[in-house]
Amino acid sequence: MSKPLILVTNDDGMFAPGIKALVEVARALGEVVIVAPDSPQSGQGHAITLTQPLRLNKVSVFDGLDAYECSGTPVDCVKLAQHIILKNRKIDLCVSGINHGSNASINIIYSGTMSAAMEASLEGIQSIGFSYLDFSFEADFTAAKYYTHRIISYALNNRFENCNLLNVNIPKLKKEDIKGIKICRQAEGTWAEEFVEAKDPQGRPYYWMTGSFSVENDSQTTDIWALKNGYVSVVPSMHDLTAHAAIDPLKALEKYD
Amino acid sequence: MSKPLILVTNDDGMFAPGIKALVEVARALGEVVIVAPDSPQSGQGHAITLTQPLRLNKVSVFDGLDAYECSGTPVDCVKLAQHIILKNRKIDLCVSGINHGSNASINIIYSGTMSAAMEASLEGIQSIGFSYLDFSFEADFTAAKYYTHRIISYALNNRFENCNLLNVNIPKLKKEDIKGIKICRQAEGTWAEEFVEAKDPQGRPYYWMTGSFSVENDSQTTDIWALKNGYVSVVPSMHDLTAHAAIDPLKALEKYD
Repeated sequence: MSKPLILVTNDDGMFAPGIKALVEVARALGEVVIVAPDSPQSGQGHAITLTQPLRLNKVSVFDGLDAYECSGTPVDCVKLAQHIILKNRKIDLCVSGINHGSNASINIIYSGTMSAAMEASLEGIQSIGFSYLDFSFEADFTAAKYYTHRIISYALNNRFENCNLLNVNIPKLKKEDIKGIKICRQAEGTWAEEFVEAKDPQGRPYYWMTGSFSVENDSQTTDIWALKNGYVSVVPSMHDLTAHAAIDPLKALEKYD
Repeated sequence: MSKPLILVTNDDGMFAPGIKALVEVARALGEVVIVAPDSPQSGQGHAITLTQPLRLNKVSVFDGLDAYECSGTPVDCVKLAQHIILKNRKIDLCVSGINHGSNASINIIYSGTMSAAMEASLEGIQSIGFSYLDFSFEADFTAAKYYTHRIISYALNNRFENCNLLNVNIPKLKKEDIKGIKICRQAEGTWAEEFVEAKDPQGRPYYWMTGSFSVENDSQTTDIWALKNGYVSVVPSMHDLTAHAAIDPLKALEKYD
């Protein structure tokens, strides 16, 4: 039986410890092709490159595996992987990450990691984004790899029902302290934006974005609750942004003049 | 009574005909502040700028109105507008556009116009993105302005129920040929990506993204159907990407080993 084809990508580039961990897990479970951006793309959301041409460079980073750096965004990586590198071969699973830092709650919307996974899901490919709540370059991926292996195995053996995209976040805990996997919904939250203002040598102001995340609803059904309570959170996600419950009340606008 | 405060933004920059049309409509209905990117940002999705500082330049483009160019993405524009320019004054409505070209169906996910509107909605501001299905710089905005005026008036006088973000698309038709406003859901669709490959003077390949959009479901309840049939489409939208119907079936993963 031929091995399943797994596309691995991320938003941090080819030399991030997170993608190394993900490749190690994926190569034990299937045929792996890697396409990652050639510069860090955190916070790139679902950006695509329309006004620049894109480059692909084959690189030798993972022994015996085909790996390519792409000059574009994480979404560009997925598009080029599917249409140029893999020439529209059927991809069985796309995995993105392992991101260094949380993509729980509304961070799915800003995340390059999750946007790469979402792009694959838009093209009909079952897809998973993984994030680990440890920003450190020296992070210990032992627990993250264990759960990534379990979830990828499940995904290769089961078609998800009513969705084809998972947002997985792994708490910064030792493997023995993680309580298991919890299927969740996305918590409500917001970024309280703060900007640091500085002046350049000509005295002109510029601004660095910073900010702190605050959760508005972390009831037991949410990903934020799961992570705080020692679980790996898995949010089945989709790209239908319609607020279906708003359709009927809004019909008054059809007649508004 | 004080006039409502309306934040106007877009992804095409300050000199696009679309933002001019939107400002003309908005200034008749409230106090207007304009913040737009200083370079075109189509396809920027929900990108934010984390690794560069941001600049704001006050510009004189619209008689008697405060307008600022921002060096970042559409999402950056909204964040800087709220926190730096308006110093957290309460914004009554954020309007983005009028985009030149459709943001119906899944294009909401790639669109800088819609991401700016979504960012405001994430911060609790009632928000609307407008797009007009005419790419031309010489596009006639008469009908677009008429419907934009109606919809903004409604939004200033009514709190949307169960959502605070609308995705509005206006067909390329004369005003008298438009049949009215239709509240819709987002159509399913995909981009069939095609890349044009070319070679640089050193013989190295590069790729331009192109592609054609195809609709998978354009039943009468969708925005694509409404536009094809002469209606202005309005999709109430949200930022909860949870596929709620997938939560129960996925619980098998919690026990999968």
